[in-house]
Amino acid sequence: MRKKHVGFLKLENVDKAREKLLQRAKLNLRVEIVHLNNALGRVVAEDIYALRDYPPEDRAAVDGVAVRSEDVVGASQSNPIRLEIVGVVEAGDVISGKSLSIDVNQAAIVYTGAQLPQNSDAVIPFEEALIEGNYVYVFKQVEKFKNVSRKGEDFREGELLISKGTLIRPWHIAALVESGYKEVKVFEKPKVCVINVGDELYEFADEASNKSGIPNSTGPLITAYVSELGCEPVYLGIVPDDEVAIKDIVEKALRKCDVVVVTGGTSVGGKDLVPDVLSKFNGAELIFHGVNLRPGRTAGAFLIDGKPVLMLSGLPVAAFVGLENFLKPLIENRLNMRKLPESVIEGKLTRRLANVVGFKSYFRVVVYEDNGQVYITPLRLTGSGILSTLLKGNAVLVIDENVEGYEEGSYVKVKLLNPIYEGRPEFLQNSL
Amino acid sequence: MRKKHVGFLKLENVDKAREKLLQRAKLNLRVEIVHLNNALGRVVAEDIYALRDYPPEDRAAVDGVAVRSEDVVGASQSNPIRLEIVGVVEAGDVISGKSLSIDVNQAAIVYTGAQLPQNSDAVIPFEEALIEGNYVYVFKQVEKFKNVSRKGEDFREGELLISKGTLIRPWHIAALVESGYKEVKVFEKPKVCVINVGDELYEFADEASNKSGIPNSTGPLITAYVSELGCEPVYLGIVPDDEVAIKDIVEKALRKCDVVVVTGGTSVGGKDLVPDVLSKFNGAELIFHGVNLRPGRTAGAFLIDGKPVLMLSGLPVAAFVGLENFLKPLIENRLNMRKLPESVIEGKLTRRLANVVGFKSYFRVVVYEDNGQVYITPLRLTGSGILSTLLKGNAVLVIDENVEGYEEGSYVKVKLLNPIYEGRPEFLQNSL
Repeated sequence: MRKKHVGFLKLENVDKAREKLLQRAKLNLRVEIVHLNNALGRVVAEDIYALRDYPPEDRAAVDGVAVRSEDVVGASQSNPIRLEIVGVVEAGDVISGKSLSIDVNQAAIVYTGAQLPQNSDAVIPFEEALIEGNYVYVFKQVEKFKNVSRKGEDFREGELLISKGTLIRPWHIAALVESGYKEVKVFEKPKVCVINVGDELYEFADEASNKSGIPNSTGPLITAYVSELGCEPVYLGIVPDDEVAIKDIVEKALRKCDVVVVTGGTSVGGKDLVPDVLSKFNGAELIFHGVNLRPGRTAGAFLIDGKPVLMLSGLPVAAFVGLENFLKPLIENRLNMRKLPESVIEGKLTRRLANVVGFKSYFRVVVYEDNGQVYITPLRLTGSGILSTLLKGNAVLVIDENVEGYEEGSYVKVKLLNPIYEGRPEFLQNSL
Repeated sequence: MRKKHVGFLKLENVDKAREKLLQRAKLNLRVEIVHLNNALGRVVAEDIYALRDYPPEDRAAVDGVAVRSEDVVGASQSNPIRLEIVGVVEAGDVISGKSLSIDVNQAAIVYTGAQLPQNSDAVIPFEEALIEGNYVYVFKQVEKFKNVSRKGEDFREGELLISKGTLIRPWHIAALVESGYKEVKVFEKPKVCVINVGDELYEFADEASNKSGIPNSTGPLITAYVSELGCEPVYLGIVPDDEVAIKDIVEKALRKCDVVVVTGGTSVGGKDLVPDVLSKFNGAELIFHGVNLRPGRTAGAFLIDGKPVLMLSGLPVAAFVGLENFLKPLIENRLNMRKLPESVIEGKLTRRLANVVGFKSYFRVVVYEDNGQVYITPLRLTGSGILSTLLKGNAVLVIDENVEGYEEGSYVKVKLLNPIYEGRPEFLQNSL
C-alpha cells in the first residue's frame, strides 16, 4: 500500500506567497536589439528618448495660404488685403536651409505637412481666401501660428518617449520612426520550460483509439499561456512518476530556461515526488507549497540557485489559476511592466455565491447582456479540471479569502476572458 | 498653379458608411487545418463539437476510498463500518473493460482522476476515513456520486464545444485536446496589403541624416495593427504621387490581397490621385469618401469587383482611427467573430470637453488613478498627426456626433490602449 495522502498541514496566504516569490526569485534578463519591423509585442528594455524634434520644423496643419500674420492685421470682408503668391510648398518639398522665403505682403500656397516658408507664421485655409492668378485676397486677420504645427509640438529632442517596460503597440513603432529610430532595445523573451509529470499522461498527438490514460491537455494550455504572456515556451514533455526521470528533466530545464513550470507529482496520487526531487538540488530553497487558492491549492515554488521552479496542479483549470497568480506577476514585475489594463465588467449576480472560508477563489461565470443590463451567472461546476467552465464561462470572479460571498442581485466586477453573450445563453436555460 | 483644394461637399455619417461597407464588401475567406500546437490566436472556421465525453468515465474527484454508497448507510462515529480494501487505482491506471471491480462491503483506494472501480459510486476522502492494513473504517454515510467526476460532466460527445468565429485562447486548445482533437479548422489569415502614397515619404530604414521629406511612420503603424488584428500584412511600400505608379501597385495588391489599404493621395496636397485611379478600374464602385470622423474625415472606400480598398489619411493618428472604424469591423464581421471584450474604464473628467458639432470624435485622454479615484484628462493637442497623444495618452474617448461634449466632473467611459497611470503623471502637471 502506498503512503497515505497527508495533505497540507497549513495553507499559506496566496498573496504573501506571491510576495515572497517576487522578492526572492532571480530572473536572468537579457536584452537584444530588434528592427522596428519586428518590435510589435516586445517589451522595451530601457527608457527611450526622442532623437529629434517632431515635427522637425514648423509645418502647415491645413491646405491653404502661408502668410506673415502682421501683413493681414485688419483684414475684413470690406477691407480685403491682397498678397502676392510667390510659390507652392508641399509636404517633403524642401530641405532645411533651402526653403522658400516670403517677404512683406507676400504669401505661398502650402499643403498639409509642408514646411512653412521662411518668415511666414500662419496659414489661412483655402476656404477663407480667394485666389486670383498670382494674388490671394485675405478677408480676415489671423493669429500668429494659426493652423501651424509647431516644431517639436509632438515631441522634443531628448524628451522621454517610451518608458522601460512598455509593451510595444503599433503607435509606439510609428513614434519611434518619427523620432529617428530604426531599431529598439527590448528584453529577450524569457524562456519558460514546461514539464508535465504523470504516468497516466500521454501526448495528444500520439493518441490512438485504444490508448489508456489521460491526454496531456495542461501542457498545451501552459505553453499557449506562456506565448500569450510574451515569453518563449520550451515544452520538455511528459515525464513518468519517477525520481530519476524528474531529476534529469529538471536539470535540463534549469540549463535551458529562466523559469521552470512543473505540473503534477506534487500532491496528487499520493506521490509527492516533485518537491522531494527539487529539495535535493544544490541551492534549493522552498518558497512555499500549498496556498489558500481555489482551484490551485497545491501550487508551490522552489528557487534553485535563485531560479524559480513553479509547481502547479496537473489539472488544467487549477494550473491556469496558478499561472495567473504566480507566473504572470513574476514576468510583469521583472520586466518592469506597468500592469496592462484588464477587461473588467460589472454586472448583477443572478444567484447567491458562497465562498469557501479562508480561500481566494476563482469562480467561472457567464456574463451576458439582456435589455441593456449585464448579468453574471456563476457556473455550478467548479472542479479544477472542468475546462468547459472556461469555454461556456466567459469571465472569472475572484473572491478574496476574507469575503464570505455575494447575495443574489448584488453587483460584482469580473475579469472577462471571452466575449460577452448577447442574451441569456441557452445552456443556462437548460441547467438552471 | 495646382487646382484648388475642393474639400468634401458632404461628409457621410461614419456609422452608415461602415454599414454600407460591411453589407457590400466581399472578403474571400479560405480555411486551413492547423495542428493544435499552432492554433493559438487563430479564428475557428466552423462550429466544433466534442468527439467524446469528458471525462470519458466516472472518476475520483479527490484522493480517498471508493465505496458502494449503499454499504455505508448508517455509518457514524459510534457505528463505523468496516470495508475490505481490494485494490488501488491511480489516474490512467486502467483501460475501459479491464477496470477493477468491488463487491459488497469492499472498497478501493483511488487517487484524483482515477477511473472509479466498477460498482463503486462515491469516494470518501482520506481525511474522513481510517485505514488499517487492508481495511478501511468509514464514520459517515455518503451520498451517491459524492466526490465523483461524472462521465461527460465537463462535456458530452456531440456537444457544441467552440463556436465558429472564436479566437483561440489557451483553454480552447486544452479543451480540444480533451475532446479528442489534434487539429482544428481555422480561417486563413486574411491578407491585407498596405500602400503609402506620397512624394514626400521615405522608408525609415533608408534614412540618411541629409534626407529631406517625411519618414513613413504610418506604414509600419498599419502593418503592426494588421498583425495585431490577426491578419497577414503585406507591405507594398511607398508610391510616388503618380497615377501610373499608383495604378500598377493597386493592381498588384488586388492580385495578392483580400483587403487593400492605401494611405495618402486622397485629399492631401490637392492631389486626389487615389480616388481618380481607383474609379477607373473595371468593376470599381465607390462606397463612400469623406466621413464625419475626427480625426480621419478623409477616409473612403472603393470596392473593385467586390474587393475592399480602403483609403485612409497618411497621418498616423487619423489612419489609426480609420482602421478602428473600417478595417477591424470588416474583419470581425466576416470572420463571424463575437466582439472581443475591450478594456473600458469609467472615470471623472478633469476638464470640460467640447465636441465639434456633427462629428464622431476620438479624443485621446490620460487615465490615472489617484487615491482610489479614476480621473480622465483630455490631451490638448488633437492633430491627426500628433502621435505623442497615443504615447502619453492611454485611452480614447469616443464622442458621438449627436453629443455636444461633457462637463468637467462628469463621468465618462473610455477605451484603454495603454496601462493606467498611478497618480497624476508629471507631464500633465507641466502642461495644465
